[in-house]
Amino acid sequence: MSTVAPQTFNAAVVEKFGPEVTIKEIDLPKPGPNQALVKVLTSGICHTDLHALEGDWPVKPEPPFVPGHEGVGEVVELGPGEHDVNVGDIVGNAWLWSACGTCEFCITGRETHCADAEYGGYTQNGSFGQYMLVDTRYAARIPEGVDYLEAAPILCAGVTVYKALKVSETRPGQFMAISGIGGLGHIAVQYAVAMGMRVIAVDIADDKLELASKLGAEFTVNALNEDPGEAVQNYTNGGAHGVLVTAVHEKAFGQALGMARSAGTIVFNGLPPGEFPASVFNVVFKGLTIRGSLVGTRQDMKEALDFFARGLVKPTVTECALEDVNDVFDRMRNGKIDGRIAIRY
Amino acid sequence: MSTVAPQTFNAAVVEKFGPEVTIKEIDLPKPGPNQALVKVLTSGICHTDLHALEGDWPVKPEPPFVPGHEGVGEVVELGPGEHDVNVGDIVGNAWLWSACGTCEFCITGRETHCADAEYGGYTQNGSFGQYMLVDTRYAARIPEGVDYLEAAPILCAGVTVYKALKVSETRPGQFMAISGIGGLGHIAVQYAVAMGMRVIAVDIADDKLELASKLGAEFTVNALNEDPGEAVQNYTNGGAHGVLVTAVHEKAFGQALGMARSAGTIVFNGLPPGEFPASVFNVVFKGLTIRGSLVGTRQDMKEALDFFARGLVKPTVTECALEDVNDVFDRMRNGKIDGRIAIRY
Amino acid sequence: MSTVAPQTFNAAVVEKFGPEVTIKEIDLPKPGPNQALVKVLTSGICHTDLHALEGDWPVKPEPPFVPGHEGVGEVVELGPGEHDVNVGDIVGNAWLWSACGTCEFCITGRETHCADAEYGGYTQNGSFGQYMLVDTRYAARIPEGVDYLEAAPILCAGVTVYKALKVSETRPGQFMAISGIGGLGHIAVQYAVAMGMRVIAVDIADDKLELASKLGAEFTVNALNEDPGEAVQNYTNGGAHGVLVTAVHEKAFGQALGMARSAGTIVFNGLPPGEFPASVFNVVFKGLTIRGSLVGTRQDMKEALDFFARGLVKPTVTECALEDVNDVFDRMRNGKIDGRIAIRY
Amino acid sequence: MSTVAPQTFNAAVVEKFGPEVTIKEIDLPKPGPNQALVKVLTSGICHTDLHALEGDWPVKPEPPFVPGHEGVGEVVELGPGEHDVNVGDIVGNAWLWSACGTCEFCITGRETHCADAEYGGYTQNGSFGQYMLVDTRYAARIPEGVDYLEAAPILCAGVTVYKALKVSETRPGQFMAISGIGGLGHIAVQYAVAMGMRVIAVDIADDKLELASKLGAEFTVNALNEDPGEAVQNYTNGGAHGVLVTAVHEKAFGQALGMARSAGTIVFNGLPPGEFPASVFNVVFKGLTIRGSLVGTRQDMKEALDFFARGLVKPTVTECALEDVNDVFDRMRNGKIDGRIAIRY
Repeated sequence: MSTVAPQTFNAAVVEKFGPEVTIKEIDLPKPGPNQALVKVLTSGICHTDLHALEGDWPVKPEPPFVPGHEGVGEVVELGPGEHDVNVGDIVGNAWLWSACGTCEFCITGRETHCADAEYGGYTQNGSFGQYMLVDTRYAARIPEGVDYLEAAPILCAGVTVYKALKVSETRPGQFMAISGIGGLGHIAVQYAVAMGMRVIAVDIADDKLELASKLGAEFTVNALNEDPGEAVQNYTNGGAHGVLVTAVHEKAFGQALGMARSAGTIVFNGLPPGEFPASVFNVVFKGLTIRGSLVGTRQDMKEALDFFARGLVKPTVTECALEDVNDVFDRMRNGKIDGRIAIRY
Repeated sequence: MSTVAPQTFNAAVVEKFGPEVTIKEIDLPKPGPNQALVKVLTSGICHTDLHALEGDWPVKPEPPFVPGHEGVGEVVELGPGEHDVNVGDIVGNAWLWSACGTCEFCITGRETHCADAEYGGYTQNGSFGQYMLVDTRYAARIPEGVDYLEAAPILCAGVTVYKALKVSETRPGQFMAISGIGGLGHIAVQYAVAMGMRVIAVDIADDKLELASKLGAEFTVNALNEDPGEAVQNYTNGGAHGVLVTAVHEKAFGQALGMARSAGTIVFNGLPPGEFPASVFNVVFKGLTIRGSLVGTRQDMKEALDFFARGLVKPTVTECALEDVNDVFDRMRNGKIDGRIAIRY
Repeated sequence: MSTVAPQTFNAAVVEKFGPEVTIKEIDLPKPGPNQALVKVLTSGICHTDLHALEGDWPVKPEPPFVPGHEGVGEVVELGPGEHDVNVGDIVGNAWLWSACGTCEFCITGRETHCADAEYGGYTQNGSFGQYMLVDTRYAARIPEGVDYLEAAPILCAGVTVYKALKVSETRPGQFMAISGIGGLGHIAVQYAVAMGMRVIAVDIADDKLELASKLGAEFTVNALNEDPGEAVQNYTNGGAHGVLVTAVHEKAFGQALGMARSAGTIVFNGLPPGEFPASVFNVVFKGLTIRGSLVGTRQDMKEALDFFARGLVKPTVTECALEDVNDVFDRMRNGKIDGRIAIRY
Repeated sequence: MSTVAPQTFNAAVVEKFGPEVTIKEIDLPKPGPNQALVKVLTSGICHTDLHALEGDWPVKPEPPFVPGHEGVGEVVELGPGEHDVNVGDIVGNAWLWSACGTCEFCITGRETHCADAEYGGYTQNGSFGQYMLVDTRYAARIPEGVDYLEAAPILCAGVTVYKALKVSETRPGQFMAISGIGGLGHIAVQYAVAMGMRVIAVDIADDKLELASKLGAEFTVNALNEDPGEAVQNYTNGGAHGVLVTAVHEKAFGQALGMARSAGTIVFNGLPPGEFPASVFNVVFKGLTIRGSLVGTRQDMKEALDFFARGLVKPTVTECALEDVNDVFDRMRNGKIDGRIAIRY
């Protein structure tokens, strides 16, 4: 062990579903087989953590638990048996904390659909604490030489949008409209540009659209000022080949269909609890594909981190302390966050 | 010209949107360049013809017009210029009556998305009359030796479900749930079986489910008696890889999502005027793909007719006369049609 | 343990590369973690076993070893740790005996390309003996109610041709030419038919072509009597969409290119030690795809066994005793085997 | 007509297969239906023109004819009937001069495989003359504002490598090894970079490798100094996902297989008359795909020109006069051409 770990450590704990986490001392866990204890260096704060805290998704975690699934840290102790990582390695936890390894999804490289998966900061304690456990078969390997604070959002926001762009089946040179330039969207713009797509950014805040332009979007639409469907149809001469919806407003879903080219694909990344109304006539008449995409596999993670490590993607990250988590959640509820906020331990 | 065509002929005409077509004599048209005059032998009657008559779709035809896009007949006169068919050939009209030939969709084998397409029995007079025009570049070639009455429904119902099964990306050996065993569904069961899929039929009428079993469905679900989502999940140990929705009830859409396996594809074939509510959470969490599919291209048509000509697909067809069309529409409105009805001239 | 296993057992051992295996008593192995001891009931004999015996492949096994990778047997003892199978289960060994589970190929459902894979009857002792070890994470699960003797060839020949047909990307309704109707080919015909393809069989023996017709091939070509490329081009009006080469003669490779339709795919299944000369001009001008395919993954195995268990594929199997193995190899060298031969213990 | 065309014009004519074209005056052709007369402004000189001159391909043109299929010019007269271009438009001829429009390949967006295609500068007179005919349904539309001299090589070299990169199915972020950094290769490097691939350049000339680095290749291999297979395997930790062979030496084909990652794809672009020896064992064992790719469709052309018009691809072009064509062919035979040479009229 490269560091002597204490017997207890500070963490943000969801004691019951509600508005606030409790910052308190909890016991250090012992890594089991296929597990490692990790000293957390930083953790991104994701919308999912807010859903975990409020317990408003159909599938709920069981309090008490520690949220957080964008944690980067150093392996300080390995559980019994063989491991593919060593003490001292820098690893990350992720939403897909582990999976069964034997079901049809696991053996076909689609482990995010495993029915027995464990989720970081949801069904397993996460990275909103000074220490965490990871499953060494599933933990992300952080490439050398990167900024850990910037790496954190790649572990969920980054891999999520990267995967969504992949499953959109949009090819280099085709138009990709990205709706919502927040924590996910501003990273999505960068991945899409790096993947050779022609990016259109849609949001309702001019400063976010300016950011998108700086990051390589070739056209931007403020959906408050003009109909985004019409604007995208005009600019692209028939609609975007791919549309990525990172926004979680119901309105964004309907607009997304309007931006799509015939035979185009609309990918949903957000997990709002409600329903969205889709015009069957349009979906059928225009031959549209609507696809849901959630986080990514280990291979997606490796690829997403590779784009990041090569400097092609750089999340905008603001630092905070563990004690600030409730404040961050407040700002999140009010849509007042630019880019991503990450806890620095 | 192998037959002397008269100066006028009988047709079922939509004079204005409403409940009934008018059977009347109209003038024989003259084929233009790329067109042929066809003596119609038979024409299937499709739900779309009812929508055309009632004018309840967002995109409307302009009365007066002759419906019908499942017509089979003999070429009796060719327009000026070169043609790929000859007088005496047996050809069919189809929903995709013609397309521009030069847009991005036309030059990539996706002419059904052409913005300048003409639709048979909708924007061009169709096969509810003793004569019709076809575009010889787009008219279906009816294979030799087939029963024309049975061939008629392949031209729309057949190619539509065949294409839907293709775009479902469901592979041989995987489960395909087909919701609605009517005019489209009973043909879909046969195509799916011929394509090597394991077919599950879902309907609310036991006699239709019995027909599905006879046609090769290995499992059937009566959605009045049990939850189709649950039943399909249990039988397939996790859900169907593909779900084809030929039913046009809003309820069928929600149920279809419940039948799908994680990462599965739900294809919508119907064109109801309304919206359907989809749970974004489920679509994203289960990584589902929802896809619209409308009729098929010339290549799809050729393939669909080849399955039919090889005897692998045999539509259930009942014969009627041109004068019966309004009665048939009545029965259609009341869901009282088994298989397909075709006009015999 | 459901059976008391002896301390030693009879096996066919390759003591050094050469013409013959030695039938002798060897010690019973002890299953380690992730391993099970299996009482073998039957084992198919594959061309690969002959290559293993003769040591003529670029990648060689290390004598002494027991060949055999089409073994079906009963689990009689589990190694330490957790397992996904139980004592009494019927399982199979396969060419892909195990893989690393963590490399890019393993985590993307392509474990057959794992650089650290172990091969049954090659780098690990196989099923040419009364007992064998399997890796319980990779061993095939034999479906209930099947004939074990017939199941054996599915474990290599079956999954190999099934996978090859998959990667040929040939769709239901398209033409698949299968060159060589031997141990692999006669199973390939059945899978291709079950997958909805239109099958053309090519061989130089009329009895094999007759068998192919019985199994559902719609057209056969005796390559001794006519040019197979020309014959296939004529019958299919332009060439087969897919060509599967199970024959291992160099001549078959060149012929295969001649049978293919423009933009078609030729899949090679055999592993001859030599080179094949391909006309670059034709490959480029006709836009052909040449693809190698070796055995299959666990998912492919599961699917291949499912087709078999549903009765759609029935290998022709002749029974022999362990002592007959050298005789079988002699017949194999002389091309005198119809279907497959399997050892019954 | 915007320009009065003369009755005769100068062209480079292949009078018989041999070493030299003849520069002579020939009669101005009259555009037929679907044709336009074009005043040529510039034409690239391609290896295919040399093959046309020497008549060394299995499929031969019929002298006398005018080579050239990278011509850019202005429409000066339209044939009878409707056209999708106007007098004054800037268009290009291409290798795919026209196709039948009705075969299975034409109606599925794969017109380059049409058996009745006409080839520019091969079966139809091409752009090595001051005037040429184009088929207005197939002629490339040159985007506004581009340099015509640089646009010329896009019409064959550009679209050819762009299409090859597409069919390699290599995704953004994956490794693409490009073998041969000449007329095709130096453009391929730029397309691959614009498509988000990580490019490795392989050649035997250091100055070409330097050019590749400048154009965005992240790694280069001089195949004279080191084994390219080994070098690529080491750099990429297992091989390139895609390998593009623009070199026409037989040796390059064997090397290309050695550079590929397991399950990777090797695309051949060149059309050498001979055969190449491939190790079947390696192709099967590593699960490789070998694919031929020839020029591109109208859609590929549109996309290739769009990358060019957006400034992402800039061919290195040297200007020459029509009278220099024989000299250029000499330099081509000796491998002495950097980038591309284009005739300026």
